[in-house]
Amino acid sequence: MDLVTRMLDGDRLALARLITRVENRSDEVPAVMRKIHPRLGRAYVLGITGPPGAGKSTLVDRLTAGLRAEGAAVGIIAVDPSSPFTGGAVLGDRIRMQTHTLDADVFIRSMATRGSLGGLSRATGNVVKLMDAFGFPWIIIETVGVGQTELDIIKQADTTVVTLVPESGDAVQTMKAGLMEVADIFAVNKADRDGAHQLMADLRFTVHLHYTSAVSPKDIDWEIPVLATQAVNDTGVPELLAQIRRHRAALEAGEALEKRRQARRRAELEGLLVEELTAQVMERVHADEDLSRILEAVTGGALDPYSGVGEILAWILRRP
Amino acid sequence: MDLVTRMLDGDRLALARLITRVENRSDEVPAVMRKIHPRLGRAYVLGITGPPGAGKSTLVDRLTAGLRAEGAAVGIIAVDPSSPFTGGAVLGDRIRMQTHTLDADVFIRSMATRGSLGGLSRATGNVVKLMDAFGFPWIIIETVGVGQTELDIIKQADTTVVTLVPESGDAVQTMKAGLMEVADIFAVNKADRDGAHQLMADLRFTVHLHYTSAVSPKDIDWEIPVLATQAVNDTGVPELLAQIRRHRAALEAGEALEKRRQARRRAELEGLLVEELTAQVMERVHADEDLSRILEAVTGGALDPYSGVGEILAWILRRP
Repeated sequence: MDLVTRMLDGDRLALARLITRVENRSDEVPAVMRKIHPRLGRAYVLGITGPPGAGKSTLVDRLTAGLRAEGAAVGIIAVDPSSPFTGGAVLGDRIRMQTHTLDADVFIRSMATRGSLGGLSRATGNVVKLMDAFGFPWIIIETVGVGQTELDIIKQADTTVVTLVPESGDAVQTMKAGLMEVADIFAVNKADRDGAHQLMADLRFTVHLHYTSAVSPKDIDWEIPVLATQAVNDTGVPELLAQIRRHRAALEAGEALEKRRQARRRAELEGLLVEELTAQVMERVHADEDLSRILEAVTGGALDPYSGVGEILAWILRRP
Repeated sequence: MDLVTRMLDGDRLALARLITRVENRSDEVPAVMRKIHPRLGRAYVLGITGPPGAGKSTLVDRLTAGLRAEGAAVGIIAVDPSSPFTGGAVLGDRIRMQTHTLDADVFIRSMATRGSLGGLSRATGNVVKLMDAFGFPWIIIETVGVGQTELDIIKQADTTVVTLVPESGDAVQTMKAGLMEVADIFAVNKADRDGAHQLMADLRFTVHLHYTSAVSPKDIDWEIPVLATQAVNDTGVPELLAQIRRHRAALEAGEALEKRRQARRRAELEGLLVEELTAQVMERVHADEDLSRILEAVTGGALDPYSGVGEILAWILRRP
């Protein structure tokens, strides 16, 4: 707990150690989160996602330079939900981000899957909190891919930039709905390559359809902008940063930002509740002979699972 | 419930209607599953997965023809976990499978996401059960993509064929670990195209590394075979069917098949338990004033979620 005090006093090493405890799912995590809770809510969280090879890390690097030029400190969390098999690519990305490693006002941390993917999403959220409590006014979450886990991770951002490259045309077709759900801004990177114009036109058409069809109620009036960038030579990066600020201003103008954060806190509570409840209930099931017999009967095929669940719940939830 | 009796007597229309109830998450589902439970466990479940455009439907069509030639009836469940945005591709696939639509011993059903993705996996499992109870000795689950949801769906198969095409090289790099986890057999389809040899060599190397490294304990001695197929002209399909039978025989030789099915039943029970528990607990939280106050405090940011969960659980799980 002394570590928390030191971290709140600005000790970067203490921050790094606390992040490691979050990564390792240490038993101290709940106590740490309780202690830092009063210091939360000041950071603005930016998410950068997209398929492998879309140049996300370079973009994060350039955006960080833009924020640093205005004096803002930046915390960066690079999340790789995939397996050790793909570790190489991400390691390469990390090396590309070395521009800022000597800058004391930039803190970069990579995180990879350990155990369950759901756990990675929670761990990322807790690292965001640590960086927020530490005092970074901007936190960037960078994540590879656009699958369900990545969506869960990136939903913790206030503004999300989805980065695509002309080569990701096919992926875009497959995941269009997921992309629309998560993107606040599209950045078509490596925009000098063949197919960039086509991809941008395609995205703009889809975005406009999505904007005008209004399936879900909107908390802000926002048609997702589609920008061309070439992060390696900074082209389009100031424009991207301007759109990020415009989105932030739109969220902050009314109650949208606070409402989104409330929904996020509620989802976090429900997720924790489900996990904790499941753990405690399964522990009881294994410890209790009658309940173990039900579990065995379902596992062995003698009892159907719906009847099994009914019997277990009747036992667990009977009122005092 | 009369519908269940009719279905068990071989009425295909009754089967179709029960599947619709499962898709719509009707309140009758638990009662239906209880009633058919004694009739389960006779079908062998084959899974076919792979990225869009890998020719899965043609392969399913050809495998079905092979099984039908031996007189076996086949139930087919084509699952599309993606959104309405990609509906077109799947519809096209369905049309390609029309060879068997007039065959009374082939039953084809498409399923798409309604609501949560977790729900789709459960619904697919319940449709497998309905087809099993109906009496199909072979059930084929076909699913697009290789993300987490698709993995959850395909894990319900006894033998899984992962279909790839030379163009899926990049996807293979990204998802290699996931593929190894799920595949019992690799089929490189459209094997006459450029890059097929390279992809097969790459897969065989990875498969062999995986086989010899033995990260996880193995229930059967099985090095994933990598086959070349050209489903459109039946090339390689008899060999694929032979490998499927060889894998089935390996699973059935010892206790592996039964153990895998036990693990699946256990996972199903736990999934149902978590879902039901969460629903009941959240209902209580909303109905109870004290608990609602905790929920509001966390949502509003006044209370940290770990403390909130602790308070809710203390209330819910206090012993009688």
